[in-house]
Amino acid sequence: MESLLNKPRLVQMAKDKGVDAFIATSPENVTYSSGYWALSQWIRRGPQVFVVLPAKDLEASRVIAPTSLLDQLVDQEDVWIKNVTRFGFFHVDKVEGPVSEADGRLLDLFGLPDEKDGLGALLKSLRSEGLDKGTLAIDEMGLMPGQWERLQQELPQAKIVPATKLFREIRAVKTTQEVERLRRVATIAERSVDAALKVARAGMTEVELARVFHTTTVQGDATPVLGCIGFGTRSAMPNVHPTNAALRVGDVIRFDVGGRYRHYRADIARIAVLGEPDPKIVRYHRALHEGVLAAFEAIRPGVKASHVFEVAMEATRKAGIPHYARSHVGHGIGLDGYDMPDLTPGNDQIIEEGMVMCVETPYYEFGWCGLQVENTVVVRKDGVELLHDTDGALRVLA
Amino acid sequence: MESLLNKPRLVQMAKDKGVDAFIATSPENVTYSSGYWALSQWIRRGPQVFVVLPAKDLEASRVIAPTSLLDQLVDQEDVWIKNVTRFGFFHVDKVEGPVSEADGRLLDLFGLPDEKDGLGALLKSLRSEGLDKGTLAIDEMGLMPGQWERLQQELPQAKIVPATKLFREIRAVKTTQEVERLRRVATIAERSVDAALKVARAGMTEVELARVFHTTTVQGDATPVLGCIGFGTRSAMPNVHPTNAALRVGDVIRFDVGGRYRHYRADIARIAVLGEPDPKIVRYHRALHEGVLAAFEAIRPGVKASHVFEVAMEATRKAGIPHYARSHVGHGIGLDGYDMPDLTPGNDQIIEEGMVMCVETPYYEFGWCGLQVENTVVVRKDGVELLHDTDGALRVLA
Repeated sequence: MESLLNKPRLVQMAKDKGVDAFIATSPENVTYSSGYWALSQWIRRGPQVFVVLPAKDLEASRVIAPTSLLDQLVDQEDVWIKNVTRFGFFHVDKVEGPVSEADGRLLDLFGLPDEKDGLGALLKSLRSEGLDKGTLAIDEMGLMPGQWERLQQELPQAKIVPATKLFREIRAVKTTQEVERLRRVATIAERSVDAALKVARAGMTEVELARVFHTTTVQGDATPVLGCIGFGTRSAMPNVHPTNAALRVGDVIRFDVGGRYRHYRADIARIAVLGEPDPKIVRYHRALHEGVLAAFEAIRPGVKASHVFEVAMEATRKAGIPHYARSHVGHGIGLDGYDMPDLTPGNDQIIEEGMVMCVETPYYEFGWCGLQVENTVVVRKDGVELLHDTDGALRVLA
Repeated sequence: MESLLNKPRLVQMAKDKGVDAFIATSPENVTYSSGYWALSQWIRRGPQVFVVLPAKDLEASRVIAPTSLLDQLVDQEDVWIKNVTRFGFFHVDKVEGPVSEADGRLLDLFGLPDEKDGLGALLKSLRSEGLDKGTLAIDEMGLMPGQWERLQQELPQAKIVPATKLFREIRAVKTTQEVERLRRVATIAERSVDAALKVARAGMTEVELARVFHTTTVQGDATPVLGCIGFGTRSAMPNVHPTNAALRVGDVIRFDVGGRYRHYRADIARIAVLGEPDPKIVRYHRALHEGVLAAFEAIRPGVKASHVFEVAMEATRKAGIPHYARSHVGHGIGLDGYDMPDLTPGNDQIIEEGMVMCVETPYYEFGWCGLQVENTVVVRKDGVELLHDTDGALRVLA
């Protein structure tokens, strides 16, 4: 079965690092490695789910989930793992007489013994699989304080290594399914910008424009996540949150936006100006745009992330912003808004086919405005493929 | 200035527990205690913000934030804390010539020294305030693995106690501002259900109904969070996620839903039936409804949470579901979907004026359907005040 998880890459990583099993704990890595989207874990801090992935036998992988969240193991087609351990009390009833196949599978899960405590269930599972003497790569991000130490105490013969970064490395090269979801959500973001710009006019507030933007996102069956939309001088704030500030002729409108579709994130930036743009806006935006397009030319399998950074910076400076300064010109995207690779100065990571990246050249000038080009691409054999329709040229609204 | 934070309750808690300073680390507690909504912290795992609250002098409270997130300290009216420490590199430019007052304040923040590392900045701030010899209540939920231990090592003279539960206790009694936001978001949820039911008809899918639901939420300037919407036997899944399953005459439609408005959560449940309902549905739903209404009568300042549980369970059983079983009949709500108090069997917590609760009696019968009544109330001197218009009676759709 196709999975979100890049299984060959996980297996290779296990070989390279001498890992016997990976253990996912954070919502991103749980959903990534199992296909299981455990609602409460995503919308709150606290609820825990664990996924154990023995590298030599992925079919023996196991999900350890709270009883209250079992239903989504049966009802989500992304889930490929068959072994389940449940913990915690949650009461359900059952109709008299026969039930559907899906309900039957669900009732089977509820019929499993209650292991009470999640970490205890994880320990038990590791021991019964003989993994308690191996090298365990544990995603530390989703652990509660003290749990790392408890695992070390209870598994004295295991070698426990942190895995949050390793999971990010595995996630960096997307599977086909992931690329299609990223394409869909990036396209939804782009269309949501279009819908907002279609109705933008003088006097309209940031909140009103955001409402149109998010409505379009929801109509595409995505969930709003990132909604930085600002006018005029406010657009210079990197994380500008919409207020009742009203749009005026000559204002820049900056969007740094994107929702979530079937768990996958979008993050694109677009700039529009209401009426004739100030020549400095046109000049600076063109420079930022050229920076991104130069990065596109530079991106191909085998080059270093830092090379892409240097190319984009130099192109932007040459094209019209000689003082342009940045800590990065982009980042991977997937289940998390910041996947690997980071397009940063010192980063030796090698670009690989199948990576999906947001390439961006933001410019924030307080007292003037913020400008930004941000596009999402997938790395193909010979270069990049854009995951949406347009590449972020300046839009002038009549 | 009015705040989301219940300052008298925090000060009282500090006295009762001998705490010199509270330190917030998780997104809920950071926003709660400072009014500061730090975007990246809310939409990803990893970015950290700290708030130090010296109980004897709240005016000396301090926000410790990444440079990239400083803008929202100036642009959010909820923020009442004046002292800021920043850490991390983030480049911004400044227009030549004068800037607005808001941009000036923002540039002042960017002009602060870069403390590089968040935890280091926290340590430095605690030392300079003389808090390194006191009792520090640190919200462990937002710490990364190893940080608790590092704080203990670096502050050998301090007594460090976990504070996630203490913060939940402080948050349990809402301020006026909080109640108004909770009323608003609960009302948005209720209206979003109404909008969905208005268009529900045979053949419509769960996804289509969810789209109408979430669109209405977004139109109310809230963000979709919880969207369990299921038809027929699927409605029995506690976390049912909308699919292309189509509505049929006689089906139950179960909503367990709610968005986020200005950081505050909603969580209500409503049941409708398309066409004439099966008598068992009517009977069982009425029993669940009576359970919630009996809980309303029982809730008043001074009673135990466990008493409310017992009253609701008994009323539901008496009214028509003799085998009714549950682990809780509700929970507080606020910035988190599960605030205190938990309406559970063993819970001795005393209900207080100003608490806001979701009172619920869900019933999940696999192979048949799920039924649920869930309403949000604020506790007043003499009983409960409903925070939305209707109380969850069964809706029959023509």
